[in-house]
Amino acid sequence: MIVVMHRGASAPEIDAVCQRLSNAGFTLHLSQGVERTIIGAVGEKSRATVSGLEALPGVEKVVPILQPYKLAGRDFHQEDTVVNLGNVAIGGNQCQVFAGPCAVESWEQLLEAALVVKESGANILRGGAFKPRSSPYSFQGLEEQGLKLLAKAREATGLKIVTEVLDAANIERIGYYSDILQVGARNMQNFYLLRELAKVDRPVLLKRGMAATVEEWLMAAEYLVSGGNDRVILCERGIRTFETATRNTLDLSAIPVVKQLSHLPVIVDPSHATGKWQLVGPLARAAIAAGADGVMIEVHPHPAMALCDGPQSLTPQNFTALMAELRAVARVMGKQL
Amino acid sequence: MIVVMHRGASAPEIDAVCQRLSNAGFTLHLSQGVERTIIGAVGEKSRATVSGLEALPGVEKVVPILQPYKLAGRDFHQEDTVVNLGNVAIGGNQCQVFAGPCAVESWEQLLEAALVVKESGANILRGGAFKPRSSPYSFQGLEEQGLKLLAKAREATGLKIVTEVLDAANIERIGYYSDILQVGARNMQNFYLLRELAKVDRPVLLKRGMAATVEEWLMAAEYLVSGGNDRVILCERGIRTFETATRNTLDLSAIPVVKQLSHLPVIVDPSHATGKWQLVGPLARAAIAAGADGVMIEVHPHPAMALCDGPQSLTPQNFTALMAELRAVARVMGKQL
Amino acid sequence: MIVVMHRGASAPEIDAVCQRLSNAGFTLHLSQGVERTIIGAVGEKSRATVSGLEALPGVEKVVPILQPYKLAGRDFHQEDTVVNLGNVAIGGNQCQVFAGPCAVESWEQLLEAALVVKESGANILRGGAFKPRSSPYSFQGLEEQGLKLLAKAREATGLKIVTEVLDAANIERIGYYSDILQVGARNMQNFYLLRELAKVDRPVLLKRGMAATVEEWLMAAEYLVSGGNDRVILCERGIRTFETATRNTLDLSAIPVVKQLSHLPVIVDPSHATGKWQLVGPLARAAIAAGADGVMIEVHPHPAMALCDGPQSLTPQNFTALMAELRAVARVMGKQL
Amino acid sequence: MIVVMHRGASAPEIDAVCQRLSNAGFTLHLSQGVERTIIGAVGEKSRATVSGLEALPGVEKVVPILQPYKLAGRDFHQEDTVVNLGNVAIGGNQCQVFAGPCAVESWEQLLEAALVVKESGANILRGGAFKPRSSPYSFQGLEEQGLKLLAKAREATGLKIVTEVLDAANIERIGYYSDILQVGARNMQNFYLLRELAKVDRPVLLKRGMAATVEEWLMAAEYLVSGGNDRVILCERGIRTFETATRNTLDLSAIPVVKQLSHLPVIVDPSHATGKWQLVGPLARAAIAAGADGVMIEVHPHPAMALCDGPQSLTPQNFTALMAELRAVARVMGKQL
Repeated sequence: MIVVMHRGASAPEIDAVCQRLSNAGFTLHLSQGVERTIIGAVGEKSRATVSGLEALPGVEKVVPILQPYKLAGRDFHQEDTVVNLGNVAIGGNQCQVFAGPCAVESWEQLLEAALVVKESGANILRGGAFKPRSSPYSFQGLEEQGLKLLAKAREATGLKIVTEVLDAANIERIGYYSDILQVGARNMQNFYLLRELAKVDRPVLLKRGMAATVEEWLMAAEYLVSGGNDRVILCERGIRTFETATRNTLDLSAIPVVKQLSHLPVIVDPSHATGKWQLVGPLARAAIAAGADGVMIEVHPHPAMALCDGPQSLTPQNFTALMAELRAVARVMGKQL
Repeated sequence: MIVVMHRGASAPEIDAVCQRLSNAGFTLHLSQGVERTIIGAVGEKSRATVSGLEALPGVEKVVPILQPYKLAGRDFHQEDTVVNLGNVAIGGNQCQVFAGPCAVESWEQLLEAALVVKESGANILRGGAFKPRSSPYSFQGLEEQGLKLLAKAREATGLKIVTEVLDAANIERIGYYSDILQVGARNMQNFYLLRELAKVDRPVLLKRGMAATVEEWLMAAEYLVSGGNDRVILCERGIRTFETATRNTLDLSAIPVVKQLSHLPVIVDPSHATGKWQLVGPLARAAIAAGADGVMIEVHPHPAMALCDGPQSLTPQNFTALMAELRAVARVMGKQL
Repeated sequence: MIVVMHRGASAPEIDAVCQRLSNAGFTLHLSQGVERTIIGAVGEKSRATVSGLEALPGVEKVVPILQPYKLAGRDFHQEDTVVNLGNVAIGGNQCQVFAGPCAVESWEQLLEAALVVKESGANILRGGAFKPRSSPYSFQGLEEQGLKLLAKAREATGLKIVTEVLDAANIERIGYYSDILQVGARNMQNFYLLRELAKVDRPVLLKRGMAATVEEWLMAAEYLVSGGNDRVILCERGIRTFETATRNTLDLSAIPVVKQLSHLPVIVDPSHATGKWQLVGPLARAAIAAGADGVMIEVHPHPAMALCDGPQSLTPQNFTALMAELRAVARVMGKQL
Repeated sequence: MIVVMHRGASAPEIDAVCQRLSNAGFTLHLSQGVERTIIGAVGEKSRATVSGLEALPGVEKVVPILQPYKLAGRDFHQEDTVVNLGNVAIGGNQCQVFAGPCAVESWEQLLEAALVVKESGANILRGGAFKPRSSPYSFQGLEEQGLKLLAKAREATGLKIVTEVLDAANIERIGYYSDILQVGARNMQNFYLLRELAKVDRPVLLKRGMAATVEEWLMAAEYLVSGGNDRVILCERGIRTFETATRNTLDLSAIPVVKQLSHLPVIVDPSHATGKWQLVGPLARAAIAAGADGVMIEVHPHPAMALCDGPQSLTPQNFTALMAELRAVARVMGKQL
């Protein structure tokens, strides 16, 4: 950590900062610049141990040097993490497609979607039973009944199931019916939920919050890993920007950035990011070309009848065609899909 | 709602949209433009009843006309809501200051802060017992012990207490010890939490999410009001933008915007928005000049020793000086503080 | 255009709006909703002819229906535009790589870069002679001397030359030495410059502004096309967002969005978007997989010695390796590179 | 400047960085941390002298310590700059109102607006003769004729005149007719224009770009001051964010931030920031309460007939009422208006 003192900071002010840092166990290096004094604090302690430093008189700013995440970071865990789920591997040289409807609406709808997913060669079925909706007047999901339909679809097809958890109170119930627990973008910093998910024996799909930096996203993953659950799959799904042509702005740069900083697998959800099915194909291809370990795609047998996010859902036909394209791009990347 | 068809949309495509809308109970007005057909759908139904419309062939876009919130909106509730809490009124011609430390750290710290708040003439004491922190390694709050200290400070000073709820499981417990329940920015779209808070007999302070539009913020309030709790206090606390000179960008335009769209009282938290105590005073004054019903200010007896957000906390001395300034601005606005 | 009246707008207010619109030549359709009156205005006129409508009493909002661009838009120009430059085609089934150093620094540096570009099979050499720099103390380019070196490199290699124009006063001079005139992101809405470039017999590479929506970008292109220059190449180079892990956030969704809305070719500059050479390869591949007509890549013989943007420049070796990858992705997309 | 080396950077890599820095005249301080080596480089040289450092092998990041602006910054120029214009002072204990129509449309319109401005007690008349418009089909201003009308209004009222310069070619002409030259938000980083304005004997009103950080804004001011023109007035006018309830998001935090970092006067334009006249009053009051040296307000005799930005223009009556409110807030701030 580097502490930059204000121009003209007094000797007692500089001393007070040094005292505080050495009490906290840091080794110090002082640089008396022409204009400012700079204090380098070296040590194993995290910056969290000396909060409030900027509030000391004479301090201009504190510049952290180390990443604040340790267990989710690559520095101390060089090899890529592969999340194994029976015969399905997420990460490594596999490229997985997670697909299915936004929300589970009925057995017919879910089964039809699941069969398309299965036949196209994808391995993981998505479907929401508890839906976070901006409006209290929108369809909120079939809840427990939806979970049961997902489990039934798993039996019928052998696909793995991923579904969203909205609250800690439902973790056990949802874990009973599904294979991967999803944390939605709006809950990425629901730390209470993360702490509870850290104790569970299920992989967690952690979506990036709409306003979350990559660092904050990896810190949310750190909650999971430091709490005991290292089977974390990151999912980029678009960030909030000024552009209104798409629902959010898909940040594909985050893929190579996360690959540098973390060992965790990372997938991309172009359906929620763009909100428009016509854009899903180009961005799914781009995600894999950028190095993603997979994509999450919404498929609905009848998008115009969907109770949720129809405009971003592919028809079975379009989804099947896209799978062929994704396979070709994955091959160029030396991956299997 | 207006449905804009693609240039060259076919007659059957237009018919299908009209069918769908009239089945849902809307009255239709067709405009055959030079380039496009536009379908106006008029009715009392919310747009949520016809989701998926954009997924019908030939539809270019759907433009909503009505606000999606009814109960939180001003259209059907013209007079300003005043949230009364014993002898303290939030809204109307009162201007309230909510002040106190970011986190409750000890009885000494809390009492010292509470006495300053009390003596300066403010009525509401803030203090976090459960803290949402980006890092799992940061101080997470004193939890239940913190709640008890807050209740003790209430007894000692007569101040009202506001503190944050992180999870539905803790609502009852926190409601037992405090007067106003706070929903933090990261939980603004924790719909499960909102639904539970809607059932509680306590006012809710609803902070705006860092990536939330004013419309989404009011929809979160709609969850509360439509669920039975109309004692909602909105709190602007900065949004995520590209500017890094401040932690977030305080959106003071939101004050007059919310005043136009909603009847709910709205306050401003310049401490969290800026992250720097030097900026708190100017922006607190500005908030009141913009028409806010109050401000929330962090005060700590020893900011440099704070376990949380010291750099944004005012000293008792600076807080007392600020109160005088705020009173002068409130007077110009014809309000009491 | 749709005019939405306020709830409770009076009959005379509605009449005044109708009068104004029909005077301007629009045909009107009134919808008397339960809560609001909505006026549909149909006609060939652009919305620009009735500015100020929102300022009329009783008007809540004005919703434009048609795209504000005509000549840059696809509605009236269905086929893709291909910009031909001798034997080099930009658009269509070609995928072009524009490559070279950020700034022209010397003949040795430029020639070395140009030879690498040439040998790798790319067709267009980039290099800045006039550099827009955030700091007045940074290297501002070799100016005229830089232009002469670019022309000399063209002679030596046969590559086409693209270089930036900062001011209308220099258009003629720069056009004399180069093949494509570049408008930088900071000048995308320098309308004076656009108007002058519209009169010139040179293709224009129009970079997207950092804060520009796709609509504003296409409106900037409309300045060029409506002024007489229809040889416009769009270039996505990242937008300003809250994320600081990359210099800007590359918006690859803009590629399929632009392809839907416009007939103009569109390329991607991952070097400036990310600011880090390690991210350039993954995002260049992603750009082509998303459907871009080409990419612009910075190459420097000695990045660490570069006077400008060294950290984002590829070494010759890395560039050559990337070309092979891009060729493989282009092949999957059915394009030649 | 601090250079942070990658974990595991080799000794020769560290040496190469040190070599480079000491050749450039910096004094070095090495910190061998547990995980990383950190090199502190101290000296009077600007960071611009060692560009490309991040491109050296083994370098993780370069953290600048000093502000990149010297002449616009407060470090070496502690007292506030006051820009004097005859009997009108911008900065210090004066609070100035710049008011008038968005665009000059006719003599009648301009005179009517100017008389209102004059009678209300404001000192500076704004009006655009050259207008930067997103659409080539919108009114582009009366150009030279508009300038002549502005000069005529100055004669008629004694008000000072501020108007926008779009291109270096017009500086002389516009300077002939007006007192303050305005650089619009879209031109804030038109460095060619800034360099020419630096040579002129007229104060420059420098609007903040929609995507510009405070640091970039001050660097644009540095172009002017370092080029010889220290009469710079900064103007905050809103930044681009995801919020669509207002045209842009007015960043009032920038006022106290700029006051800390720079000695230049700073004003606020709530009309362009919000795009809605109803929001102008609250935000103008807030701007002055936040410490701004003035505000710029659009006034139009007949907003609904305005050729440009009518919806954000105040009527004469509303403007006159606002002036009284602003005066009351200025008084609280200890300023004259």
